[in-house]
Formats: sequence, structure tokens, C-alpha cells
Amino acid sequence: MSLTAASPFQVAQSASISARTLATLPADARNDALSAIHVALSAAKDKILAANARDMEAAARSAENGELSLSVLKRLDLSRKGKLEDMLKGILDVRELEDPVGRVSLRTRLDTGLDLERVTCPIGTLLIIFEARPEVIANIASLAIKSGNAAILKDEGGKESTESFIAISTVISEALESTQVPNASIQLLTSRSSIPDLLSLENLIDLVIPRGSNELVRYIKHNTRIPVLGHADGLCSIYIHETADAEVAKRVIQDAKTGYPAACNAVETLLVDEAVVETVLPVVAESLMSSGVSLRCDARSKDGLTAKLPKSLSVLLQDAAENDYKTEFLDLIIAIKTLPATPEIPGVEAAIEHINTYSSHHTDAILTRDRDVAERFMKAVDSAGVFWNTSTRMSDGMRFGFGTEVGISTNKIHARGPVGLEGLTTYKYLLRGEGQVAGEYGEGGKKWKHERLPIPE
Amino acid sequence: MSLTAASPFQVAQSASISARTLATLPADARNDALSAIHVALSAAKDKILAANARDMEAAARSAENGELSLSVLKRLDLSRKGKLEDMLKGILDVRELEDPVGRVSLRTRLDTGLDLERVTCPIGTLLIIFEARPEVIANIASLAIKSGNAAILKDEGGKESTESFIAISTVISEALESTQVPNASIQLLTSRSSIPDLLSLENLIDLVIPRGSNELVRYIKHNTRIPVLGHADGLCSIYIHETADAEVAKRVIQDAKTGYPAACNAVETLLVDEAVVETVLPVVAESLMSSGVSLRCDARSKDGLTAKLPKSLSVLLQDAAENDYKTEFLDLIIAIKTLPATPEIPGVEAAIEHINTYSSHHTDAILTRDRDVAERFMKAVDSAGVFWNTSTRMSDGMRFGFGTEVGISTNKIHARGPVGLEGLTTYKYLLRGEGQVAGEYGEGGKKWKHERLPIPE
Repeated sequence: MSLTAASPFQVAQSASISARTLATLPADARNDALSAIHVALSAAKDKILAANARDMEAAARSAENGELSLSVLKRLDLSRKGKLEDMLKGILDVRELEDPVGRVSLRTRLDTGLDLERVTCPIGTLLIIFEARPEVIANIASLAIKSGNAAILKDEGGKESTESFIAISTVISEALESTQVPNASIQLLTSRSSIPDLLSLENLIDLVIPRGSNELVRYIKHNTRIPVLGHADGLCSIYIHETADAEVAKRVIQDAKTGYPAACNAVETLLVDEAVVETVLPVVAESLMSSGVSLRCDARSKDGLTAKLPKSLSVLLQDAAENDYKTEFLDLIIAIKTLPATPEIPGVEAAIEHINTYSSHHTDAILTRDRDVAERFMKAVDSAGVFWNTSTRMSDGMRFGFGTEVGISTNKIHARGPVGLEGLTTYKYLLRGEGQVAGEYGEGGKKWKHERLPIPE
Repeated sequence: MSLTAASPFQVAQSASISARTLATLPADARNDALSAIHVALSAAKDKILAANARDMEAAARSAENGELSLSVLKRLDLSRKGKLEDMLKGILDVRELEDPVGRVSLRTRLDTGLDLERVTCPIGTLLIIFEARPEVIANIASLAIKSGNAAILKDEGGKESTESFIAISTVISEALESTQVPNASIQLLTSRSSIPDLLSLENLIDLVIPRGSNELVRYIKHNTRIPVLGHADGLCSIYIHETADAEVAKRVIQDAKTGYPAACNAVETLLVDEAVVETVLPVVAESLMSSGVSLRCDARSKDGLTAKLPKSLSVLLQDAAENDYKTEFLDLIIAIKTLPATPEIPGVEAAIEHINTYSSHHTDAILTRDRDVAERFMKAVDSAGVFWNTSTRMSDGMRFGFGTEVGISTNKIHARGPVGLEGLTTYKYLLRGEGQVAGEYGEGGKKWKHERLPIPE
């Protein structure tokens, strides 16, 4: 790992050349590098905390002057209980994951002595733009090395964490010297205002991964032709079908709204069948309101809730505007829309239509006791995650069992949904022959066998 | 299918709405639509040929005036032996392919009664920009319907094939009326100069597939933020290792260069170990020259060939300039470069370095009798196809056994190499629960099972 003030072009060029070597290293060599980083960072704990303390001091002064928010200050602080330990454990966790490189996904005997194999390999060079969290450097370096990709790390903006960054990356850099992983394959770029330059290097950088605010993701998506893995929005919906169990609805929506309201997989819109506006919905509403959630209701749901809720709560109900159904609140607010039952359009079809029009194609859920309705919903909703009787908050790489999460993608190209290490790989086709040529097959010539071969475990 | 002069925005909007319906149709409904198209086009043969004859008449006049090339004229002609029959057979071939939609690639039990499933689904709306070949409409419509995607078809430029286009798309449109496939899910856009407008509709169009010249692909890649499936260049190399069998080298290189020189998978550069410049290379060179191939040689290979070839051939050898190693000739020309053997850098490493620097990451091959050298080459060369002892021309969806080829991609994101129907799909995560919520797992709570479940055949 190098900490560099070189130009974006130089950085990307040296990273992409190192990527070629890194891509050919066996799993052991990549895992050994992670072990070396873990040992070195553990030994340098005090030095890192001292550097972080200096950053914190400077940042605290900026915060007093109102130049820095308290949340940035909190993010910056590495001395908080368990933070450094989590960072160190994270490196070992990534090391223990299954190797994503060299996995065979297709084997076909094209002809006798002519075997085709499709095998995963690293993508090449990643650009990761992240907000000022010092521990992220170790995490990204681990993911990149494990998956055999070079990575350019660029801090989103501030210089709040400069000393911490320098301390951590210097330790990683020294640790890599004793390993087979080329130093230049992980680079932390310190020169300022270089994000637009980096985003223009489409011939050297293969994938951009923004790890920061929605605004950052949106800016990047609109300013580069390099593929971007991520999502700008997470407008998730839950649809309460008329057969929904009230207790399940209460639990699931409570979790989806209040578990972590600022998360991209939190629910923002509730769609309700008219039939249960005065039965299931009041149970859900009372539970949400007791957790301080504001309810923005359409006329029908407001009427229904007003009829059923105690006055002390019903006076707090708000009116929804059309824009509320397009808003990712990221806060203790939820928009509620009633789906009128008509003989022509059943509620589930109205819900599908609403979600495919308004949602950000991230994660949407249905609550129902009717399996057929659930399967119809899961088939027709065009989102990365479509869930039945469970919380939208389940949309997460760790919860899905991927061991880690590189990000959640709302792209339809390449990785979609929570992305684990395999999202950092592509594949190539290896064809092993004995001198066969294309011209000898086809009309009047040899015939293709195209025999599917078993894939070794 | 509709033939439309509506605005690009209207077209894309109606296509993307139809895509939602198309995406939920079962395989039978999609296959039935292909049968209906086949029947209708077969019945309308005479009408289509008459329309094509009118196009040909007009085009022949343009060709006489020098406004149109003879190759365009040839491409346009549907009356040529077998062309219409091939088009019709192609529809049935696509119908018979395995359904690419609804395939399960991952099943995990997150917890009792909480099962995750990753299942393939259509991407959504495709934009296919193609050159003036009337039969392509039927092929693209078949691929789109089979994979459950809506498609907007736009002719690259000329109006040479207008009458043929109208005839074919009118027949397809009428045929679709009797099927469950929405008419607007396949649209042929006739309004002119609308390509830049279409390329700006990144919120409605999910993937662009250019089927035309390298210039067209390059133009599109530089003028849209929609992902593009394809390749602008096919600069393929073959490396003759010092242990290569002369007979295999002759056969393979002959096929790779002369089988179809204008193809993207034809070989353009020959890399040769110095040790075999006077043994294997002359055998290859003589065979190529007898087929009219021009050899552009570096000094060492020219000397070697001059020493071994008959004078009548050696006088025809040309000198290679640096630029020849960067050129996709698409013609009966090949550039030859000798790799000097040094104790530090074996030939295979020099070949890998050359290819990773110069090639277009499409397809590259090694000819050798040494398995270790071949495996090293296949590991380190960063191309979509890396072949051993076989021709670069093997890089093809039909030859790979995919049944069809949507294109060949040199992207590292999404599909890479020859792309079959599965390249027109993405996936979504379905999670079926019983009211579980995220907040009940983790520290002090329930534990994840993360049990891999078998995937049904």
C-alpha cells in the first residue's frame, strides 16, 4: 500500500500494472498478506490511536467553530469502545472467506480434447471513494487483496482524518513489503480535488465503488463512464395484503422503520389494502407512533386510523402529499397509501404497479398469508430484493450469509442487491485444445459435442 | 411489435411499461409468441420478398450513382439462397433454447422458515442498434421475447431497407396480437437521427447492444451512460512458444487468420519465441503467404524467415512498424514480433506482458506442448478468452454451445466473452419468511443458520 500524492493518472497506471501481478497470486499469498496486515496493525495500535487523537483534537476545534458536524466527529473517533478491535477482526473475517477467484461456473466439452471452462478472476482496478472513517481503509484493503483486485482509495472530502489515514496506510504499506502483494496495488490518494480526474480514467479503472452519502453516489453516477457499483436511493415499500397477520405486520414494519431509520433498507412507504385499514393498520400505526414515527396518510387511511386510534394519537396523524411517496425520509417518518379494492384490479396488482413506478428497485416486501398472492408479488416486482413476511432490513450481505458486504447495488447489470466478494470478480473462458480449428466444424465437417461436464466442488 | 414514428421518449416509456408484463409471462407464453411469429413470417414470405425487391431496386439505383456500396446491397438482399429460410429457422432455434428466466443460482436457509433464493429475471428494456440487415429484426425480436425483455430496435443509419423492415415488422406485430406478449414490448423506431436521444434515456433503457461496425460501438460507448454490451476492438494475438508443434501452429494460425479475416476473433498479431523463428515460424509463414497474407515482421523474424523461405516468398516480407502491433487489420495482414529469450524473462512472460499491454482483451491464444507454460499463460493473460492449442476463431457463442450469440463482450462488468441468452438476464433475491425481523438476530439474540440449500435441477 502506498500513500501517494502522485497524479491520478500515475496512480491509476501503477495500480493497474500491479493488478496484473496480484491477479495471478494464489489464495495463500493473498491470505498471507491479510495476516501480515493484521499483525502489523495490531502491533501499531498505540501509534494509530495517537494519530487519531491528534485528528480528533483538530476536528473538535472545527466542531466548536461550527465547521464540522458532531456526527463526523463521532465517525472519526477510533478510540470508541471496540472500534479498533472490530477493524482488526474484520481483516481476519475477510481472510477466512472462501476464495472468490478461480471458481469454475461452466465446463463444456466442445469436442474430444477441446474443453471449455469458465473461471472467475479479479476485475482489475477498483476506485473506492469513501467518507472520513479511518477504519474503512483496512476493510477496503482486505476486500481488494482477498479478491485479487488493485484498489485506489480516495477520501470523499475533508482532511479531518489525515493523520489517522497516514498512520494506518503506512503500517499496511510496511506490512505488505514482506508479502507477495505488490505495494502499488493498494494506494491511498491524498492529493485534493482529484475525484473528477479519477472518474475520467475509464481505460485504467474498471469499477467505482462509492461508500458514502446518496449525494456522493449520485454525483459519481452522473460524472463517469466507468461502471459504478452502488445505489443512490433506497426507497423501500411494504405492502399489507388483506390477509396479512396483524402481529407479523406490527413486528416487521416496526423493525423495518425503526431498526435503523437512516439505512437504505429501511421502509419508507406503506401500502395497505382497504379491507384492513381499520383492522391491521391501526395495530401497526399504534406501534410505530409509540416509537415516535410520524405517519403521513392518504385520506382513506387517515379516516380509518382516526376511527380506531385513541384521540391522543389520531390528532398526530399527518396528511400525505404526492411527493411523500417519492421520498426516502431516512428518518422516523412513513408514508401510507390505501389501495382501493376493485373487482378489476386486486390490491396486489395495484401494489405492484405502485412499487414498479415509485420504488428505487432496492427492496420491497409483501405481508400476506396467501402464498399465491406472495408469489405473484415476488414475480412481478422489479427490485433487487422482493420479500415475503419479513423485514426489508434483511437486505444485507452479512444477513444473507455472504460474510461481508461490498455494497448494495440497484444496477441491473453485473451485481444486483447486497454484493459480497463475488461482485468483485469477473470471469474468463479458458479453452484447452489439441490443435482443433474453427474451420473444420460445421456443414460437411466435424460436429460439435457440446457436452456439459461436471463442475468440481 | 410496433413500427413507430413516436418520439424516443414515448417509445422507451411504452417499451419499459410493457417490459413489466413480459417479465412475468411463463416460458410457454413466450415460446408460443415465437411460434406465432414463425408461422406468420412463413406465410408472408412472398409479401416480404416483394417489399425487399422494391428496396433492392432503389438501392441498386443508389449503388449505380455510387451512393451505396455493393456490400450494403448484398447485405440487404433477402432473396439470396437460404437467407429467408435461415431467418425462419433461427426463430425456432431460439424457441428451443433453455429458458434463461427463473433459474435459481443460490439458495440459503438464513434461519428456520427464512429461505433466501437468487433467481434470474429479465433485465428490462434493451436498445439494439443494428446495421441494415432486414433479417436481424426477426432474430432480435426472438432473443428479446425468449429472454423476457422489451426491445427497441433502431436501424444504424440508411433507409435502404425501409420497405423490408416495414413488411417484416408488420407481420410480427400482427402475429403478436394473438399472443400474451404485449405489442409495445418490441418496437422498431423509424424516426431518423434519434440515436443520441435514445442514448440519453438512462432511466428507461437498461442495456444497449450495438450490432454493427467498430465505429458504431465506439460512438455509442462514448455517448451514453447506459451500460453497453459489446466490443469496439478485437485485437487478438497468438503466441508460438518454443515447444509449439509446427503442424498445430500452421493449422491454427491459418484458421485464425484466413478463416474470416474481417471477424473480431481473427488473429492480428503473432508473437514468436526466438528459438523457433527459423523452425516453426517458416512453416506458418509459408502457409499464410500461400493464402495471400501479408507478413509485417520485426527485424529478427524477417531475418529468420529470409534465411529459410524460398526467395520468391521472402522478397514479399514487409517491415513492421510499432503501430502494426496496435492495429486490428481485419484483412489478410498479420504483424509478427519476436520475443528474445533472456535468462531473466522467459518468452511466456514477455508474451503475457505484450498481450496485456497491446491486446483488446478479447481472445488470445498460446501454442505450446508444455502444460505448465500454458496454464501460466491462461492465468496471467487478462482477456475474455484465453486459449491453448486452438484457434482464436473458437471464441463464438455457437461454437461455445450457447445456442445463440447476443454479442461478444470485452467488458469486465456483467457478461464477458461470447454472450448467450443468459447475458440478457439479471437476478433478484427472493426471501420467504414467517415474520422474522432483522433486529432479533445478532449479539444476544438469535443466530443465523446460513445453511446452503441444494439447487433444484
